[in-house]
Amino acid sequence: MAKELKDLTKRADNYSQWYNELVIKADLAEQSAVRGCMVIKPYGYAIWEKMQQTLDRMFKETGVQNAYFPLLIPKSFLCREAEHVEGFAKECAVVTHYRLKNDPNGKGVVVDPEARLEEELIIRPTSETIIWGTYKNWIHSYRDLPLLINQWANVMRWEMRTRMFLRTAEFLWQEGHCAHATEEESQARTVQMINLYSDFAEKYMAMPVIKGVKTANERFAGALNTYTIEAMMQDGKALQAGTSHNLGQNFAKAFDVTFVNKDNKPELVWANSWGVSTRLMGALIMTHSDDNGLVLPPHLAPIQVVIVPIYKNDEQRARISTHVEPIVLKLREMGISVKYDDADNRRPGFKFADYELKGVPVRLAFGERDIENGTVEIMRRDTLEKSEAPLEGIEMTVRNLLEEIQDNIYRKALKHREELTYTVDTYDEFKEQIEKGGFILAHWDGTTETELKIKEETKATIRCIPLDGDKTPGKCMVTGKPSKQRVIFARNY
Amino acid sequence: MAKELKDLTKRADNYSQWYNELVIKADLAEQSAVRGCMVIKPYGYAIWEKMQQTLDRMFKETGVQNAYFPLLIPKSFLCREAEHVEGFAKECAVVTHYRLKNDPNGKGVVVDPEARLEEELIIRPTSETIIWGTYKNWIHSYRDLPLLINQWANVMRWEMRTRMFLRTAEFLWQEGHCAHATEEESQARTVQMINLYSDFAEKYMAMPVIKGVKTANERFAGALNTYTIEAMMQDGKALQAGTSHNLGQNFAKAFDVTFVNKDNKPELVWANSWGVSTRLMGALIMTHSDDNGLVLPPHLAPIQVVIVPIYKNDEQRARISTHVEPIVLKLREMGISVKYDDADNRRPGFKFADYELKGVPVRLAFGERDIENGTVEIMRRDTLEKSEAPLEGIEMTVRNLLEEIQDNIYRKALKHREELTYTVDTYDEFKEQIEKGGFILAHWDGTTETELKIKEETKATIRCIPLDGDKTPGKCMVTGKPSKQRVIFARNY
Repeated sequence: MAKELKDLTKRADNYSQWYNELVIKADLAEQSAVRGCMVIKPYGYAIWEKMQQTLDRMFKETGVQNAYFPLLIPKSFLCREAEHVEGFAKECAVVTHYRLKNDPNGKGVVVDPEARLEEELIIRPTSETIIWGTYKNWIHSYRDLPLLINQWANVMRWEMRTRMFLRTAEFLWQEGHCAHATEEESQARTVQMINLYSDFAEKYMAMPVIKGVKTANERFAGALNTYTIEAMMQDGKALQAGTSHNLGQNFAKAFDVTFVNKDNKPELVWANSWGVSTRLMGALIMTHSDDNGLVLPPHLAPIQVVIVPIYKNDEQRARISTHVEPIVLKLREMGISVKYDDADNRRPGFKFADYELKGVPVRLAFGERDIENGTVEIMRRDTLEKSEAPLEGIEMTVRNLLEEIQDNIYRKALKHREELTYTVDTYDEFKEQIEKGGFILAHWDGTTETELKIKEETKATIRCIPLDGDKTPGKCMVTGKPSKQRVIFARNY
Repeated sequence: MAKELKDLTKRADNYSQWYNELVIKADLAEQSAVRGCMVIKPYGYAIWEKMQQTLDRMFKETGVQNAYFPLLIPKSFLCREAEHVEGFAKECAVVTHYRLKNDPNGKGVVVDPEARLEEELIIRPTSETIIWGTYKNWIHSYRDLPLLINQWANVMRWEMRTRMFLRTAEFLWQEGHCAHATEEESQARTVQMINLYSDFAEKYMAMPVIKGVKTANERFAGALNTYTIEAMMQDGKALQAGTSHNLGQNFAKAFDVTFVNKDNKPELVWANSWGVSTRLMGALIMTHSDDNGLVLPPHLAPIQVVIVPIYKNDEQRARISTHVEPIVLKLREMGISVKYDDADNRRPGFKFADYELKGVPVRLAFGERDIENGTVEIMRRDTLEKSEAPLEGIEMTVRNLLEEIQDNIYRKALKHREELTYTVDTYDEFKEQIEKGGFILAHWDGTTETELKIKEETKATIRCIPLDGDKTPGKCMVTGKPSKQRVIFARNY
């Protein structure tokens, strides 16, 4: 067994430590020399690239185009939208100078005090302000609308407590920023994008999510409404996986972005923005992985199938290779990514453990005896079950198994969420249940006051007001006041 | 004729102004509110995406993997490699604080003086230092080598005089950073990558380049040797389009990166780095475009073919569409990107001028009469020639024409470069010729002193010592001292 695997903490012993170790041991990411910033390693980045490619295609299919806006935002821009600056401007990286000079004391370099910027620049924590400052020049007439733009970018928020992928000072994301002529159209796009994120989460990440609306208290700074997808991790905590914000006319007002309508009258533009980030990597890891390491959904796995030859000498290795190579070619023709690992410096047992740790969905092992019998050993990563299959038609067996694994881990995660979702009617029950983790469906009176009281007393937040499911009214578990429908409470990442 | 086009300055009148206007009018990019930083607009970004996808595939075919390293670099890292800090550290964006606070005077936000960083962070001007600081933990044994890593990232250099794409404070690029066990292997990779860039420039950008080595004076800060590809713009000036640096063991020394070799002995690692940036967009524009606007090589054009219907009423438009739609489908099946522009709010003449301005390689116009005759009008953007072709088999006609255009604009650019390349033997001749532009092949004595004297007196720099071509020795045109071979002088972007 590989040393890395042997040392992996078990989830039941310490879920948080298991996660931190797994990120390192599976070669996904590591801490950098810069506080709160991570290095995304090649294997982790390959998964992120698959996410990017898929999302990018999905965005473009809805008419979105990519563009790129500056990394730095003038300080004054942040203050233009009052609520926005309250929510964002505080903890951020501030550029104050544009030059270093040799230390007059001869030790390295120092900041040149003469190169002070007239106005400080902020590394973007999000780009609404710089983008709406630009849209002012792009939008003049109803013919310029809708404007459907996305950017893939790095952003920075000076977080005090960081965890790789889940909360880092710098992270990678996409941010979509759409401009519309009507409120209805902008609202429809806001919902369209949360639906797109939900589809992506469920079909590619195999991660069930609940779509809902955020409470006023949890809303994006400057938004009228924030839509969210919320996922449950294996420890019963919630993770916000993507958001889509209906920004109304707030940013159009702040940056004076108007258009001339068909009746030749000026109107303010309607806005929405939506984003997902490398945080999804954390969600992916925590949804499916186990005490043996990563479990990756086949639709996002950089290596979907690994083939390991079992041989005693070079002659056997060569003979096995002649049988394996046509299979590799056929699988690749089917669009399946295969690695044939015949490296001589690691034993099969080490390789098995390593690919398990890295979450490769399907492993084929092929030895001398298999040549005689016309068979191959298949191991599926999700259940760790081994079986023997005929070599003839193995491509179809593999393809079907990949889809079965994709489906199985989704259903497993859904079952887990359903088992850990509780309906609760009294605050006492609630306080007891929240200690055990999971999602709690409870009535709430709709006030920020009650929401904050519950958060303070139980560390549970309202994850969302679900869009689907039971809409029966009731009474708030804390105040007894009327409640329109149950909302989802949980502790969260 | 579209207003945008009518206003475009002619190259002969003012080449520099023609370029600046074209970038704006063709919707490629614009200045942002942040000094020296541009916004890359969707059409410009779509071209950059095609470059990225092609290069990314080419890198991966040579075994390179992508990863991501932090945006910010601790100031002390820059000083670790002495030459590197001299070449880079001075003009850069410096982060000194991590928090803003409400202005006590009630006007917006100010930098919180209490949130001063202990050590300033620099926005990466290039990532050798942070990456080699990381490699120290990744490389232990010869088994960990070679390490072939690339990152797609934004970088920042506080340039005083900026021009869109050619020289901006923030720009997008890729930077490859490889680590090897031997000097030979690292040198081979350095050359492999400049060859890859050369292939990309010639086959995709249709831009002929000269491969060569930089002089000591023009070398990357901290490199033993810098390889370059140099292209000639239409005004006869040179543009450095990509570089690959053999870094020797300088960064391994600076960051103490060693590996245990097969004999169990520690050795320093050998390094190279290589990069191209959004500057390639400027090179692409300036190589092919004309007084009517952009000319894009078919291999990188976001829209390769545009089809414009010519109709008088809705009935005609509908009839034309039934004939055009199967053509659109067939072209798409062949992997050709087509836009069918039947928008009703712009007249055909306006559309024609607009797609010419945007450099779409092939335009098909199709009207009532074409239905009767079974023909279609074809316009090729490179020569602006119109012809009539049979509708039957139009897909193959278009495909062949795209390849012909790709080939033609390459040959045209090559012919232009050859015509503007001069062999010169005396410094007087040189001074006269350099005023007229172009590449000058002349003998040089190999000293930085002579190089700088020529630069000061003529504004010409040595673009490279060419790898291919005439290697006959001679005498320096300035000092009369021995010269190993002619080098290329030019004024440059």
